[in-house]
Amino acid sequence: MENSWATFGRDLHLDLTGPGGLRAALLRALRDAVRSGRLAPGTRLPSSRSLAADLGIARNTVADAYAELVAEGWLSARQGSGTRVAQRALPRATPAARRTHPAGHAERPRFDLTPGTPDVSAFPRTAWLAAARRALTTAPSEAFGYGGPSGRPELRTVLADYLARARGVRADPDRIVICAGFMQGLALLSRALGTGRLAVESYGLDFHRAVITRAGLGTVPLPVDERGARTGELATLDDVRAALLTPAHQFPTGVPLHPERRAAAVNWARATGGFILEDDYDGEFRYDRQPVGALQGLDADHVVYLGTASKSLAPALRLSWMVLPDRLVDPVLALKGTGEWQSGALDQLTLAEFLSSGAYDRHLRGMRLRYRRRRDQLVAALADRAPHVHVSGIAAGLHAVLELPSGTEQSIIQAARWQGLALEGLSRFHDPLAPLASRDALVVSYGTPPDHSFASALDALLRALPPGEAGR
Amino acid sequence: MENSWATFGRDLHLDLTGPGGLRAALLRALRDAVRSGRLAPGTRLPSSRSLAADLGIARNTVADAYAELVAEGWLSARQGSGTRVAQRALPRATPAARRTHPAGHAERPRFDLTPGTPDVSAFPRTAWLAAARRALTTAPSEAFGYGGPSGRPELRTVLADYLARARGVRADPDRIVICAGFMQGLALLSRALGTGRLAVESYGLDFHRAVITRAGLGTVPLPVDERGARTGELATLDDVRAALLTPAHQFPTGVPLHPERRAAAVNWARATGGFILEDDYDGEFRYDRQPVGALQGLDADHVVYLGTASKSLAPALRLSWMVLPDRLVDPVLALKGTGEWQSGALDQLTLAEFLSSGAYDRHLRGMRLRYRRRRDQLVAALADRAPHVHVSGIAAGLHAVLELPSGTEQSIIQAARWQGLALEGLSRFHDPLAPLASRDALVVSYGTPPDHSFASALDALLRALPPGEAGR
Repeated sequence: MENSWATFGRDLHLDLTGPGGLRAALLRALRDAVRSGRLAPGTRLPSSRSLAADLGIARNTVADAYAELVAEGWLSARQGSGTRVAQRALPRATPAARRTHPAGHAERPRFDLTPGTPDVSAFPRTAWLAAARRALTTAPSEAFGYGGPSGRPELRTVLADYLARARGVRADPDRIVICAGFMQGLALLSRALGTGRLAVESYGLDFHRAVITRAGLGTVPLPVDERGARTGELATLDDVRAALLTPAHQFPTGVPLHPERRAAAVNWARATGGFILEDDYDGEFRYDRQPVGALQGLDADHVVYLGTASKSLAPALRLSWMVLPDRLVDPVLALKGTGEWQSGALDQLTLAEFLSSGAYDRHLRGMRLRYRRRRDQLVAALADRAPHVHVSGIAAGLHAVLELPSGTEQSIIQAARWQGLALEGLSRFHDPLAPLASRDALVVSYGTPPDHSFASALDALLRALPPGEAGR
Repeated sequence: MENSWATFGRDLHLDLTGPGGLRAALLRALRDAVRSGRLAPGTRLPSSRSLAADLGIARNTVADAYAELVAEGWLSARQGSGTRVAQRALPRATPAARRTHPAGHAERPRFDLTPGTPDVSAFPRTAWLAAARRALTTAPSEAFGYGGPSGRPELRTVLADYLARARGVRADPDRIVICAGFMQGLALLSRALGTGRLAVESYGLDFHRAVITRAGLGTVPLPVDERGARTGELATLDDVRAALLTPAHQFPTGVPLHPERRAAAVNWARATGGFILEDDYDGEFRYDRQPVGALQGLDADHVVYLGTASKSLAPALRLSWMVLPDRLVDPVLALKGTGEWQSGALDQLTLAEFLSSGAYDRHLRGMRLRYRRRRDQLVAALADRAPHVHVSGIAAGLHAVLELPSGTEQSIIQAARWQGLALEGLSRFHDPLAPLASRDALVVSYGTPPDHSFASALDALLRALPPGEAGR
């Protein structure tokens, strides 16, 4: 009977080193032995007393481990037949090969001027932590429980004031819904609309269009020109429930929506009962004059305002906000209340404190200066060393558009990549449903690089641009 | 249209007294109205604005309550057709007591022993802030940018170690996906499974079942008895792709899954190529001996482990984790990567630091002592003052089950409410698809109240229980 133990002990080399003490080590060793097949199903284990004596450990430790492994199903114990390895199929071996995720970490370029991310090295860590301390210290206990789908009332209250003051938004806290980023807001709105089509700008982000179609809606492109989206054409489109626009700074072409186009958009929504979804992703960064107020200020019943902390603070926060027309509040909250889509309360409380203490305004003022300086450096460098390259979209935001000779966009991007510089072409943002566009250009984010490498990134960009002779 | 509201308001006498604030009271009142049939399927509810105005409460409170009830399947909401009572079979008729509406002289209850939320007053604010400071100070800049769908690598690495040590989970960081709570994980898994049915425990949470059905899967109840879910019956069910189980501490009945049932679950998954979804919501709270290891340790290829910070730290964090079998990693990340479903990085970094510094272990040890003391108080008080009331499910977790004389559950809950005590009955958690259950019991959360009010809450509970003479 205890013969089986002789074999057991000799062959298994139970290794009782490792973290968590003897009990944990014994559990690991026994699980490993069963898993690997060294302990076959049906094998009888030594009594806890024998094993303890042999290993020189307390019997209780072994008995406890056995009980645990019986409870977990590794072992079975029946009165009269001792403790045995459970009769069940062994798990199949898992490949040791390390998984590679499609995260796109091929080879990191030295300089990145592709649009979409602000200068994350400038995140105000100290000020944020100070706000977190004040917010968490004073928060009521219930703030640590389950929250509602609309988000923390502290944040919605402060945001309503801030958006009215800074963006001319007509907001009240009850119509604000906090989201984990613009994409979540767009997904909720698309689902709330339910059916029909959503007009999108003919230049925009493919993953925004994908969110809409995943919700079961169609998309239809609205042409974009030097005055922004041609909103007058909305009236000619069938079955359009809403239009997604970037009025402050069209993404990616960089033009603000012309006042007549703003009016046309709102008029269309009023006439049809449709909605304008106003993506105000970087409306806080305007350099030449006061920012244009949000379109939503024109008609809070037909415009959904969508703002975000992703450009003004950091994408990592996953915090954004929607200001909804009254009739969308219930449907959107009903969808968001399904629980898959809640945001953490601690960052919400911290952002509320960050806003109300004035730290947000201070941070924005600093970032506006920083980005403006970079924009000026870009424009000056182009005027100096590549005067043939036309630059546009520079009045606001974190990116500019550099026109290229026809047919050269892809080869320039490819050549830049070999030099360690990541660039993005305008064609990447063209909606394939829109008529073919022949405009070649680069969408250059001067916002992304950290300060210390911006000058070098700019140098690399200038080297990648076509020489003046070829640029006529 | 708003006429229906006139009727609604006049006839329903919504009673907004009760514990947990107005929102909780409104939820209860509306659920009661649907349950009793006073609100018939298809009935259109007033807009949140109208109801709020009429009740004299904040609109957001009503909108939140509507959203919650849509999530739970009581109501449905479609843009353009408003919020309506869902078209579905009503839960079985409840005793007359349920329909007897409180006469309006009820005092506002002061104690909440309904399950689901830990003692949020015990959130370790200071230790958390210290971890946040260390984490944010040392984080690389890229941590403030857009993150991947699997979550911060710092957190996944620390979790893999922690889960192996504390829960016997076979985890490696590449198979861990961070989510914004269990519900998001369940939604992603349901969508990844795609079609077929998901077996659920016949006692469980209605909003979990709703997440599954929203993903397009059916649910089929698995009976629960004193040894947990009858997993042996999985083999008799058709078209079941996965089974959602609470092995460590069945919710709500409180029993651990019997070792044979654990083995049967894994054997079924292996034989059919199905999955066990292991909801380990409170596995860290075990009082009588070391925690039973996770089922996932038996077979990491067929068991998905789902853990959460909602019970161990706070629901407000919206942080949970899944350990996936290899073949589910790509489908789940593909769904999560669509952008609506990203979690903030700052809390992830902070939790990683909180875990690796030992603060999490310290917090758990403290909470385990605190909850254990309360459980002991509950058990001792019952033994002393209500020895006829059988209590079970006390070896682990934050709640216990108190058996009641047949047919008394609803009247006791109602009477308790009048005495200022919120209680939840077992029948609330019974899957309506399962055969009629006649078990009357209370699901009492000794975890929820703050320390200072626990003794009084216990007193109130004892006063609400039936006297011994009636309890035979």
